[in-house]
Amino acid sequence: MKTKILTILSNSDGYVSGQQLCEQLGVSRTAVWKVINRLKEEGYLIDSVSNKGYRLLSQPDVVTSEAILSKLQTNYMGRQVFSYDEVTSTNTVAKQLADEGKEEGTLIVSDKQIQGKGRRGRYWESPKGSGIFMTVILKPKMKPVYASMLTLVAALALNDAITDLTGLEAKIKWPNDVVVNKKKVAGILTELSAEVDYINYIVVGIGVNVSMKDFPEELKDKATSLLLESGKSIGRAQLIAKTMEYLECYYERFLKTHDLSELKETYSKVLINKDQVVRILTEDDSYTGVARGITDEGHLIVEKDNHDLVEVYSGEVSVRGLYSYT
Amino acid sequence: MKTKILTILSNSDGYVSGQQLCEQLGVSRTAVWKVINRLKEEGYLIDSVSNKGYRLLSQPDVVTSEAILSKLQTNYMGRQVFSYDEVTSTNTVAKQLADEGKEEGTLIVSDKQIQGKGRRGRYWESPKGSGIFMTVILKPKMKPVYASMLTLVAALALNDAITDLTGLEAKIKWPNDVVVNKKKVAGILTELSAEVDYINYIVVGIGVNVSMKDFPEELKDKATSLLLESGKSIGRAQLIAKTMEYLECYYERFLKTHDLSELKETYSKVLINKDQVVRILTEDDSYTGVARGITDEGHLIVEKDNHDLVEVYSGEVSVRGLYSYT
Repeated sequence: MKTKILTILSNSDGYVSGQQLCEQLGVSRTAVWKVINRLKEEGYLIDSVSNKGYRLLSQPDVVTSEAILSKLQTNYMGRQVFSYDEVTSTNTVAKQLADEGKEEGTLIVSDKQIQGKGRRGRYWESPKGSGIFMTVILKPKMKPVYASMLTLVAALALNDAITDLTGLEAKIKWPNDVVVNKKKVAGILTELSAEVDYINYIVVGIGVNVSMKDFPEELKDKATSLLLESGKSIGRAQLIAKTMEYLECYYERFLKTHDLSELKETYSKVLINKDQVVRILTEDDSYTGVARGITDEGHLIVEKDNHDLVEVYSGEVSVRGLYSYT
Repeated sequence: MKTKILTILSNSDGYVSGQQLCEQLGVSRTAVWKVINRLKEEGYLIDSVSNKGYRLLSQPDVVTSEAILSKLQTNYMGRQVFSYDEVTSTNTVAKQLADEGKEEGTLIVSDKQIQGKGRRGRYWESPKGSGIFMTVILKPKMKPVYASMLTLVAALALNDAITDLTGLEAKIKWPNDVVVNKKKVAGILTELSAEVDYINYIVVGIGVNVSMKDFPEELKDKATSLLLESGKSIGRAQLIAKTMEYLECYYERFLKTHDLSELKETYSKVLINKDQVVRILTEDDSYTGVARGITDEGHLIVEKDNHDLVEVYSGEVSVRGLYSYT
C-alpha cells in the first residue's frame, strides 16, 4: 500500500484528499495516515492540509522497493524488487535469488556494495548513497553462447535512461561501459548460470556513478559521475525505473530474433568506438584498427590497418582519446 | 587422523600394530583406540588381537570423506570432500560452495538426493544408499563456450572407472550417459557460472546407479545398475575415488590443448554411437544418420543419409537399439 500511495502522490500535481486515497485503496483513514507518517519518517516531505489533503513536496534519494515501484511503468521488468542497505554485490545476491527460482525481471538493488566487482573480479568503487548498484535476472530461452548479447541490450537501455534524465550525451564504449564526456559513468557485468546448451538464468549487474563529487587521483581521468557532468541531482529510483523501462522494451525486441539485428542500428548510433581508432588486446595478439560497428551477434567490427575486417568478440578494447589511451 | 588410520589399515594385508600406528601418526595409543572405536561404530569391521594389532576385515559402503580419501590417489581432484547424508542436489550444493570460493577439485558427495535433476530439469531416480551422487568443481581458464567439452572428459573418466572396478564393458552415449548392456547406468550434468568471456567455475555432477535391484516399470528397458549387470557389490567410495583419479588424468590432458584433440581417439573407442544409426532431434529439425566420432571440440560427427557430414553440438540424440529406440 505504501507503493500505491506513493505512486498516487507522485503522479499528482496538487493535493490528494485523504478521502480519495481511502476510496481508491479501499482502506481506512487511519491506515492512510499511518503510511503517510512512515513515508515522512523515511524522508519524504509531505504537506498535510486540512480540507485539502496530502501533497508530496520532495522525495529522498532512496532506492527502496516503494520508491522504485512508484515510478515504474513496465509489465515485468523490475516489478519484483529486493532492496538492501548493503550487500557484498548485487550480482551475488541475484544469483542466490535466481538459484531459488525467482522469476525473470526480478530486480536486486542496494544502497551500497562492499564487494562490488568489475569484469574479471576488478574492484569497482562504491561509496554509500552515491551510486546505483542493481542487478536484474533474465531467463531467455537460448543457448549460453549468446548470453553476451544481453550486455549490449542492457547498455543500450542504460544509455538511453541516462540521456533521458540528465540531458547529457551518453555514449557506449563497446561492450559494457557508458561514457559521458570521455569518462566512464556506468558499467555492466553480465554473468550466467547454464547447462551446456540451456541457460538457467542470466544476471545483468549495472553500476552507475550518480552523485560522487570526487574520485581518487588514479581514476580522475577515467571516471566521473552524473552529478559532476550534468550539475544535476538525479533521483536514483527514477533512473533505475527508467532503465527498467528501456530494458523491457529492448529486451522484447531482442527476443524476437534472439540477436541484435533489430537493435544494432540504434546501438551503433551511440557507439563511441565508431570510426575511432581502437587498440585490441587479446590473449595472444595486439593490433589497432578503426571500429566500424557491431554484428548481429554483438561482435565489434574492426577495420585493421590493412583494411581487413575482423570481428572482435572478447578481449580488451581501448579507444583512442578515452581513459588515458592517447 | 581417521582418514590416515583408515588409509593405513586399507593398504595393509595383515595386522597393523597399535605401536606402529602411534609412531606413524605421532599420537597416543588412546587416541588410536578412540578412532578405531569410532570406525567400528560407523560399520567398519576391525579385528583387534593383542600382540598383533588391528586388521580391517570389511568396510561399510559409505561415502564419507574418510572412506573416499583413504582410497584416493590424486594431487587435487577430490582432495577436499564435502559429504552429506541428504541434499537437494549435489550440483546445487557445489554451486553454493563454488560461489563461496572453494577451489578446483573440491568434491561434493551425498548418500541421497531429494531433488536430483537430469538435463533440463528432468527427474533422476535417487534412492538412499544405492547410488552415487557427486559433483566436482572445476575452474579451467577458458571461454564459457568450451565448457561443454568437460562433460565428455568426465564421461570418459567415469566410463573407465566403471570398467576397471566392475569388469563390465561400459560405453558412452554421446555426450553424457554411461551405458552397460544397452541400458543407462550413469549420467552427467555439467553446469557453469560465467562472465561473458570468463568461466567463474564449472560443476560436473555425476550420478551412478550402483546397487539398485529394481527399477520402476517405465525405466526397466532404459536403466540398470552396476549390481544388476555385474552381480558384484561395488564400493561406492572406491568408485568415486577411481573416477577422481581418471578425471584428474584426463582433465590434465584436456588442459594442455583446451580441447579434446588428445582424448578423442580414446573417447571414440568407447562411443556407443559410433557407426550406429542415430536420430537427431533439434528445435527445428529432425534427421537420421550414422555417427562417426567426435571433433576436437566434442561435437558428434554424423554422416547423413545423403553422406553429408554434419556436426551435432546439442539437441537430442537417440541411438538405434538403445533406450527403446528401435
